[in-house]
Amino acid sequence: MTETTLPRGLALTDLHASLADPLLEAMMFLNEVTSRFPEAISFAPGRPYEGLFEPERITDYLADYTAYLERDLGFTPDQVRTTLFQYGRTNGQIHDLIAKTVANDDGMHVSADSVVVTVGAQEGMLLALRALFARPTDVLLVTSPCYVGITGAARLLDIETVPVPEGESGLDPEAVAEAAARVAASGRRARALYVVPDFANPSGTSMAVPARRRLLEVADAADLLVIEDNPYGFFSRDEQFRPTLKSLDTERRVIYLGSFAKTCFPGARLGYVLADQEVVAPDGGRTLLADQLAKIKSMTTVNTPSLSQAVIGGILVRSGCRLRDTNQDTIRFYRNNLNLLLDELDRHFPITRRASLGIDWNTPGGGFFVVVTVPFVVDNRALERSARDYGVLWTPMSSFYLDGGGQHQLRLSCSYVEPDRLRDGLARLAQFITDQTATFAGQKP
Amino acid sequence: MTETTLPRGLALTDLHASLADPLLEAMMFLNEVTSRFPEAISFAPGRPYEGLFEPERITDYLADYTAYLERDLGFTPDQVRTTLFQYGRTNGQIHDLIAKTVANDDGMHVSADSVVVTVGAQEGMLLALRALFARPTDVLLVTSPCYVGITGAARLLDIETVPVPEGESGLDPEAVAEAAARVAASGRRARALYVVPDFANPSGTSMAVPARRRLLEVADAADLLVIEDNPYGFFSRDEQFRPTLKSLDTERRVIYLGSFAKTCFPGARLGYVLADQEVVAPDGGRTLLADQLAKIKSMTTVNTPSLSQAVIGGILVRSGCRLRDTNQDTIRFYRNNLNLLLDELDRHFPITRRASLGIDWNTPGGGFFVVVTVPFVVDNRALERSARDYGVLWTPMSSFYLDGGGQHQLRLSCSYVEPDRLRDGLARLAQFITDQTATFAGQKP
Repeated sequence: MTETTLPRGLALTDLHASLADPLLEAMMFLNEVTSRFPEAISFAPGRPYEGLFEPERITDYLADYTAYLERDLGFTPDQVRTTLFQYGRTNGQIHDLIAKTVANDDGMHVSADSVVVTVGAQEGMLLALRALFARPTDVLLVTSPCYVGITGAARLLDIETVPVPEGESGLDPEAVAEAAARVAASGRRARALYVVPDFANPSGTSMAVPARRRLLEVADAADLLVIEDNPYGFFSRDEQFRPTLKSLDTERRVIYLGSFAKTCFPGARLGYVLADQEVVAPDGGRTLLADQLAKIKSMTTVNTPSLSQAVIGGILVRSGCRLRDTNQDTIRFYRNNLNLLLDELDRHFPITRRASLGIDWNTPGGGFFVVVTVPFVVDNRALERSARDYGVLWTPMSSFYLDGGGQHQLRLSCSYVEPDRLRDGLARLAQFITDQTATFAGQKP
Repeated sequence: MTETTLPRGLALTDLHASLADPLLEAMMFLNEVTSRFPEAISFAPGRPYEGLFEPERITDYLADYTAYLERDLGFTPDQVRTTLFQYGRTNGQIHDLIAKTVANDDGMHVSADSVVVTVGAQEGMLLALRALFARPTDVLLVTSPCYVGITGAARLLDIETVPVPEGESGLDPEAVAEAAARVAASGRRARALYVVPDFANPSGTSMAVPARRRLLEVADAADLLVIEDNPYGFFSRDEQFRPTLKSLDTERRVIYLGSFAKTCFPGARLGYVLADQEVVAPDGGRTLLADQLAKIKSMTTVNTPSLSQAVIGGILVRSGCRLRDTNQDTIRFYRNNLNLLLDELDRHFPITRRASLGIDWNTPGGGFFVVVTVPFVVDNRALERSARDYGVLWTPMSSFYLDGGGQHQLRLSCSYVEPDRLRDGLARLAQFITDQTATFAGQKP
């Protein structure tokens, strides 16, 4: 018997430090856990529901976009061909459609030149962080718990992150002010804050409107930029309209990250940055922050694929640049699912039972996520058991904490499942939680 | 009259240092110079010729790919929908088709798991650099002159680059050995070398086969990884087949960057990395470098757009994973154009005239680029004059030198123009060069 191993390999410890960081493992895990247990009912990934996707529509959307180019913009067939096939403008070709859409849908009024079309919101995070963070003492404030995409991007660029704890009502502006002051007192600089004000991933919390206004005051006082990420803003459980930070931003403090992954579809990988800040060169020349992001984008992806822009452009044209209106079915689907999930939790764990078992959860105003607190330790081993023995998947909350935390919490996502499977999955989850809690109680001394 | 300026802006000097780097300006310039002088005949950008693109084929390619999923892979309609619309595998969904294609076209035999599908070769550069460069003393060797995409990506990640001068026959392996030794003697480490062995951008030079073999020996001796970038390999002027470094690489020293921008079309923004190196964790566990690149990719773009993968996948399926065969028209087009460009230079500047004026150029074995040496200074002002007064565009070679150089050289690209316009453009260029040379001679004391 011969063993063949390669004579040499690269040492993992000799690769970039981010590759040994558990955060990046968590992100891979989030993306691929679904495929590991194909039969399990999954409350794990924050993926959109697929039932509303129609593959045959791709061609229609492409046709809508090229018709728009020809009819509305007066493009010749040769120009249409160039737009679809050739390298394109670094900051994108549907920036004008996006500027109209964010104005219509969220009252965010920026020039089309302030829009950077990106390969998902993830590329937007990378561009914004790279542009803003110049000194080793620059620090990024992040909510805790936090979306791993931003903390991972910070790791890639060796940017230090400082967690700011979230409360029941999302991020507390005074906690941000305190964190910025603490960072300044240590000789560093809080350069920017990352926040999802609407239905945050993973916590599901939202900021009240007065807190949003106060956060902008705090940012101004601390000379802090705010990176607002808003993938779930449309999906409220009530009819209440929540203004984005960007729509309240009179001082151009907010860099806004948008995504079409949930309002159109993720396979296009289309996002955008609104970056209307002015940048002043030593000679007094002024450009937009969007222009600076373009320089960086030319070194990450050159430009966002024109195919993706054409398909999403077609959807925007067809909607009259009013995605909120054309998303009514989607909004209703997620609203019903979130209500159903909360109702089923209530049904399986009525209030007295809940208290005696030591189980609780929050009641988000919208979005995809609910956080359940349980008495036992929630880790990947518990997840493995849940998937194998109960056929149900979810995400351990500890993956989302930089500084420990979430050891007794799991995140449920209601976005990916049909209502019937949601009911079935909740029954499996309730059984898992009940059994684990009993085992845990039995192990107590 | 009132002037409205914003009360505050971000200081450019307070943004990341790469944004003040002339290199990134050069890349933006390369991408957008064409739009500044729409009437000029352009030998500036290395863009592919558009006459061979057929917009109506996009739908066919999509259909070919979905037929492949259903027929060859046995996907259900629901699975096809997921593949097109949903988030996907981080390292891509057409990795198997790409592995087959590089085996057929270039004799590069790697497992499909070693393939990372990227948003253009540019993202591949970013991923490879981020993974490999762990210490502040790690240095990237680059050819000089060099493609700005790699030096720009290095700037984004604060990676130091050390230029290695190219000769007439491309990169000299002994010069690489010397550079690596010099770097080591200074207490730093030459971690990797970036090279385009076939028809380099911007110089047009190619490495002879013995030099390729010797380079691999040098890399092995110096414990250096080689990042091979090969966007132009198909487009030789003769029928000679040039083996890629990767196909000669028995020690897994070579990380190969591929691109479909020139062999399919740029609008898909589709590239790939072949990263079959083994990575050894402290516990002895082995993964592929491709797996490590996936962790980074999950923080740059999450996954490459499925639409782009589907369209390029369709092209690969239709070609039987033999792109070299289906590229025969394209290969012929560029070959004819490059021959025509060299012939026209000869016609305008016959050998005696050439010598008396102090004008010369190289004779690349293929690719898109020819470098012309002239007696006058070639800068952006000369380019402005050429575009405005002569209606012809090209690229100053000085943009491609890190350490000065190329002040009397300009790069011509033959890829973007029809033969008739090429002839016309060369006449304009000859007039410009003649006039500038005369002015220059008149200014001499």
